[in-house]
Amino acid sequence: MIIDCHGHYTTSPKELQAYRDAQIAGLKDKSYKPAKAKLSISDDQIRASVEGAQLKQQRERGTDLTIFSPRAAGMGHHIGDATVSQYWSEICNDLVKRVCDIFPENFVGVCQLPQSPGVDPRNCIPELERSVKELGFIGCNLNPDPSGGYWKEPPLTDRWWYPLYEKMVELDVPAMVHVSNSCNPAVHYTGAHYINGDTTAFMQFISNGELFKDFPTLKFIIPHGGGAVPFHWGRYRGLAQDLKKPLLKDYLLKNVFFDTCVYHQPGIDLLTKVIPAENILFASEMVGAVKGIDPETGFNFDDTKRYIDAAAISAADKKKIFEDNAFKVFPRLKAALAKRR
Amino acid sequence: MIIDCHGHYTTSPKELQAYRDAQIAGLKDKSYKPAKAKLSISDDQIRASVEGAQLKQQRERGTDLTIFSPRAAGMGHHIGDATVSQYWSEICNDLVKRVCDIFPENFVGVCQLPQSPGVDPRNCIPELERSVKELGFIGCNLNPDPSGGYWKEPPLTDRWWYPLYEKMVELDVPAMVHVSNSCNPAVHYTGAHYINGDTTAFMQFISNGELFKDFPTLKFIIPHGGGAVPFHWGRYRGLAQDLKKPLLKDYLLKNVFFDTCVYHQPGIDLLTKVIPAENILFASEMVGAVKGIDPETGFNFDDTKRYIDAAAISAADKKKIFEDNAFKVFPRLKAALAKRR
Repeated sequence: MIIDCHGHYTTSPKELQAYRDAQIAGLKDKSYKPAKAKLSISDDQIRASVEGAQLKQQRERGTDLTIFSPRAAGMGHHIGDATVSQYWSEICNDLVKRVCDIFPENFVGVCQLPQSPGVDPRNCIPELERSVKELGFIGCNLNPDPSGGYWKEPPLTDRWWYPLYEKMVELDVPAMVHVSNSCNPAVHYTGAHYINGDTTAFMQFISNGELFKDFPTLKFIIPHGGGAVPFHWGRYRGLAQDLKKPLLKDYLLKNVFFDTCVYHQPGIDLLTKVIPAENILFASEMVGAVKGIDPETGFNFDDTKRYIDAAAISAADKKKIFEDNAFKVFPRLKAALAKRR
Repeated sequence: MIIDCHGHYTTSPKELQAYRDAQIAGLKDKSYKPAKAKLSISDDQIRASVEGAQLKQQRERGTDLTIFSPRAAGMGHHIGDATVSQYWSEICNDLVKRVCDIFPENFVGVCQLPQSPGVDPRNCIPELERSVKELGFIGCNLNPDPSGGYWKEPPLTDRWWYPLYEKMVELDVPAMVHVSNSCNPAVHYTGAHYINGDTTAFMQFISNGELFKDFPTLKFIIPHGGGAVPFHWGRYRGLAQDLKKPLLKDYLLKNVFFDTCVYHQPGIDLLTKVIPAENILFASEMVGAVKGIDPETGFNFDDTKRYIDAAAISAADKKKIFEDNAFKVFPRLKAALAKRR
């Protein structure tokens, strides 16, 4: 079984964006009161939205299941207040749930959290709980920078985040550390903010080792191959050593995992060389940041399965990356699949 | 000849930091008027400050010349106003000049610019001009984020920066794009802000191709191996393609170069595989971000010469990386060396 742990519903019916546009337009009016979405989207529309996109690519590339969440750039936690974010997260999660219900063999859900800059992460607990208990989701996306490119929140190791982590541990769900759109004109979203978010989060984890002492079972996936981290693995091993921390493999790799959203063979070769196979989860982020065909290969840049297939690692390691690690990092995945079949 | 294009005066005599500490302490007092530094530092002190550090490592590692600039984390452009930054930059550059004068075989200078958040980069022109014409420096370090981790300045492609670029082109000097310390508690300086700065700058260059049309001879070095860029080279090729830009090699690689401050063999192997040898400049950043010995090799993490020596590239390519490219990117280097011998 080949499990893609990182896919977003980037192709949702236009009614969703129309609701969001109305929300954003409303914010200009001081008397605006956010209202819950009441969208009229048919099952056929949902089928059509993924049929020619994510499902087609699963078939073409030979992958089986996508762990699926709302569009990351769309989360836009910097827009409006916590109520705006709450209603927006609810409808985004509800639509992902419908995709999962219509195609139970192909998708399992992960939720967007209703974060808002400066708002206590406790605020996210009800939606996390609803997503796991009612929608059957198996994880969440956690934005380390709800300000959208200005980095105004405390580091992920700060006790500020602990109430949310307590709930994650109780529910036995991991978080993918994933920023959203950038509203900072200096910082491009998919080309800089995403990758910087990954790098920044990993260095936060290095800087403060208390987090995983306090939450030994807490798990994070750092997407996009871990940002810059594997390329600079020597730098991070050296910084940890200068900071008198244990070896990274003992210090962080029970809790921190990397996905394979790295869009060329040399990048995947480096990733699989320096990061233990136990810590790598297959992912493509399709249909996502890079949509084109690589003129050097004739295949889509984001067809990452081809790079893993070609990597100089054992079949056992490939099975860990494609399948086993997903069950380990998402403890609810097995039951979620059993329930549907 | 082996030229290290990226070294900072991280070991300067304590009098320098004492002046800076007094500057910073003064800022708490509203009536404070910044004053130029008048430091009493002897030539012997300067000799001692580099003898057991940068010079020792040059000898041990077999490198010849370091292109040398003030401590990057020390630039602290977010501290105080433009006058504070001016006086601080002057004294830092003056001290680097003294190192270069005492050890003309070993060091050539690159200047710190007196940037300050929100202040017109025109403000940096006199110090750049003084550094090149009076101090004999051959380049500058340009901070794309003088706010220190909050990214409040326009992107490097914005016309905001053009007056400085005009002067760089006139003087025929390149800039290394190098952030300084981070005052953002979420963003570690050497472990996140530095690498993010590199990644962000490169994506700025991708996003707006007008810059190098307007300044065809302008040259930037992106340090730390280009941040995350080579690891995600497929992503950047794909993003450029989605944005209808030319191939990166035609679009940016006449103007943008990467150094080799990547502190492990697999990172250097990837860098030399995906980035043309014409675009890579040898560098170690010693004595810098990572000071320890890699337990996996028994050598310093930042002894990057060993990784280039071991890389699977031709002798001709190694010569480009160690020597030829430095003369190409720093057009004033040749004359600077000739003058001293």
